[in-house]
Amino acid sequence: MKRPEALTASEAVAHLKGGTLTAEALIHACLEQADAGAGIKAWSWLDPEQSLARARTIDRAGHEGRLAGVPVGIKDIIDTADMPTEHGSAIYRGNRPYADAACVALIRAAGGVVLGKTVTTEFANRHPGATVHPRNSAHTPGGSSSGSAAAVADFQVPVALGTQTGGSVIRPAAFCGVIGYKPSFGEFSRVGVKMQCHSLDTLGIICRSLEDVALLRGVLLAQEAHRVDRASAVPRIGFCRTPAWEHADRDTHALLERTAAALDAAGAKVREVRLTPADILDHHRRIFEFEAARNYAYEYEMHREKLSPALREGLLESGRALPLAAYIEAIETAEAFRCRLDDVFAEIDILLAPSAVGEAPEGLASTGDARFNAIWTLAWTPCLTLPAGNGRKGLPLGIQLIGARFRDEALLDAAAWVEARLH
Amino acid sequence: MKRPEALTASEAVAHLKGGTLTAEALIHACLEQADAGAGIKAWSWLDPEQSLARARTIDRAGHEGRLAGVPVGIKDIIDTADMPTEHGSAIYRGNRPYADAACVALIRAAGGVVLGKTVTTEFANRHPGATVHPRNSAHTPGGSSSGSAAAVADFQVPVALGTQTGGSVIRPAAFCGVIGYKPSFGEFSRVGVKMQCHSLDTLGIICRSLEDVALLRGVLLAQEAHRVDRASAVPRIGFCRTPAWEHADRDTHALLERTAAALDAAGAKVREVRLTPADILDHHRRIFEFEAARNYAYEYEMHREKLSPALREGLLESGRALPLAAYIEAIETAEAFRCRLDDVFAEIDILLAPSAVGEAPEGLASTGDARFNAIWTLAWTPCLTLPAGNGRKGLPLGIQLIGARFRDEALLDAAAWVEARLH
Repeated sequence: MKRPEALTASEAVAHLKGGTLTAEALIHACLEQADAGAGIKAWSWLDPEQSLARARTIDRAGHEGRLAGVPVGIKDIIDTADMPTEHGSAIYRGNRPYADAACVALIRAAGGVVLGKTVTTEFANRHPGATVHPRNSAHTPGGSSSGSAAAVADFQVPVALGTQTGGSVIRPAAFCGVIGYKPSFGEFSRVGVKMQCHSLDTLGIICRSLEDVALLRGVLLAQEAHRVDRASAVPRIGFCRTPAWEHADRDTHALLERTAAALDAAGAKVREVRLTPADILDHHRRIFEFEAARNYAYEYEMHREKLSPALREGLLESGRALPLAAYIEAIETAEAFRCRLDDVFAEIDILLAPSAVGEAPEGLASTGDARFNAIWTLAWTPCLTLPAGNGRKGLPLGIQLIGARFRDEALLDAAAWVEARLH
Repeated sequence: MKRPEALTASEAVAHLKGGTLTAEALIHACLEQADAGAGIKAWSWLDPEQSLARARTIDRAGHEGRLAGVPVGIKDIIDTADMPTEHGSAIYRGNRPYADAACVALIRAAGGVVLGKTVTTEFANRHPGATVHPRNSAHTPGGSSSGSAAAVADFQVPVALGTQTGGSVIRPAAFCGVIGYKPSFGEFSRVGVKMQCHSLDTLGIICRSLEDVALLRGVLLAQEAHRVDRASAVPRIGFCRTPAWEHADRDTHALLERTAAALDAAGAKVREVRLTPADILDHHRRIFEFEAARNYAYEYEMHREKLSPALREGLLESGRALPLAAYIEAIETAEAFRCRLDDVFAEIDILLAPSAVGEAPEGLASTGDARFNAIWTLAWTPCLTLPAGNGRKGLPLGIQLIGARFRDEALLDAAAWVEARLH
């Protein structure tokens, strides 16, 4: 057996149910790892005593739930009744929600143990939190689900929840070298998740195996988990450089071209897919600004001085200035874009695209560029990033796979096929 | 001048800005009226002292905001930081949210005064609250925005916020004889509004004039208010009996046929519009059940015994049992339905349809039937109900007007044309 903290959630469940591991030992190992990696600053709140007490209770009761004894990290824009939820903002310092978010309740009902709250950027937006990259503290871990990605990458927890409005699940997961998954829009409940943009916000999963994506997805949907098919048929793959291709760096260009060629050589009949309209990201931006400016009305009206200038001026004030007609045009453009993607996915099974511009950039002032992610957030399609080696600075690179909307299970199977051919 | 409590919000604003009324006198009059009508039980929380203090502050400061000094009722599934928010459920007894909902923040920033919290059914669902019909206490006021509709109808407040997932704005407004308005889906922020179904929930306005709809809409969108055009061109009207027509009573049949004929005679060239698929309400129901079952995961997992059987068994457990595929089919059917409606609205400007089955039914155990509303909630189209006389029991009837999605301003203008020809 691997060291407990190195187990994936699915592996841990097998050991827990098989009697070769206790929840207490697993949680203890994760807490030790979190302690050793405290310099990464992945957690805004960690609750060792409560977690261990809960683990012991689960060990005594047997391990019945499908997550029984598995520690989970919860991004700190997600409500927890027994831990603070501060949204990465001084406005919510000490906020103790009355109720758990629906996703937290579902995880707990399945026996999952909330290890703590992971660092988020300010309101899951741009202004960074304290987390640094687990492999090089001079680099950003990505954002906004910074702590979730860093904690999973550093083996402090096997799975964590993140959210994505632009690129906040896929990008930090790719930067940190783990799996990030954003489901089809609307499938996972967002009750108790701080709403930024109701047309874009998507709860996602950060973990280290595709089986864990399926496991957590089942729990969050209150459905039986999909069993990832590791012997599925060869997927039809579209190579989509996206309109943002020129912004990707040389490492990413080389990785994607190499991967497309390798998958084609393995039988996937990779074909090129071009997307229109080219200015689709402008429409994402309009929706983001218009909705956020109204959704953060309380924070803007009552606590303006506690907002970062990036949020206040860069998002909320520009959003206030945006006319309703411009927003409606963006919504309608997004809907037409989704219809066009339906046509694309009639011919192929998954798209292959960059997960990010490149490795995690140096510096902590920015969490990086979301342009390779926002397009798929707008598309409402499921997507995931798989770790795919390192760039020239020795930091992880990822490749992104995108499935047809509401075909998340097929995406997982295709991702397993791709994953087996990456190394 | 009318008695202050009988003024619409727009009329009150004119008097306040013109110096012929003080906010204190207005709020005082509304509070007196609420006291006289306490037997209607429209409020779950009323805050006379705070409201009067706020009114005096506004009177001293001048009346700058576009709602300065106007009292507003807030449905009790909408967060208020300074008043309890109990969602019509014992689970949330004493809950004091950390922040105001975005809609409340926008209203307050415009100078609106939150008079109190209006009674909601349990989680804006079916289990009734305490409110009775303002004209006959043996009858339901409708729901789930029961208190908002009853308070506005009884002149206890000129405007109130409601929410609609099935028929929770239009139906109580029609039953109580006032205007109810549900905007295009996604336009009004839902931050701080207890989420029931993220694909359906819509914040709405209950009031006594179309100008007030426009006024509140402007505030909630942080946009300049539309000026209702009372001399607009004759609208092209489609008479839509809907697949639920046979469920409407004789009064409603007669009212709608009579109204269609009168509007045609007035020049509107009323034509009949039939909608497909006929089972569209089943798809609404599936979306409702699937989403609510996950969105209320905390309440179901942690406080099951405090849920009404109607909610627990009738919605949440049936929703848990619904397979994801059935939900996805419903979402896709709804999207196709919306596209068909776009085609309908290429030929006409508004649809005329029943607001409800008939008058408010006798008895308080049920708040009535949502089948004439759920279809338009699913459609994401703006709609409103206008008072249109009384039925055979002497209780109000309404007619419903539906506009094209994102053409809310055109709907308001067309409604003004219709309203002028109703009497």
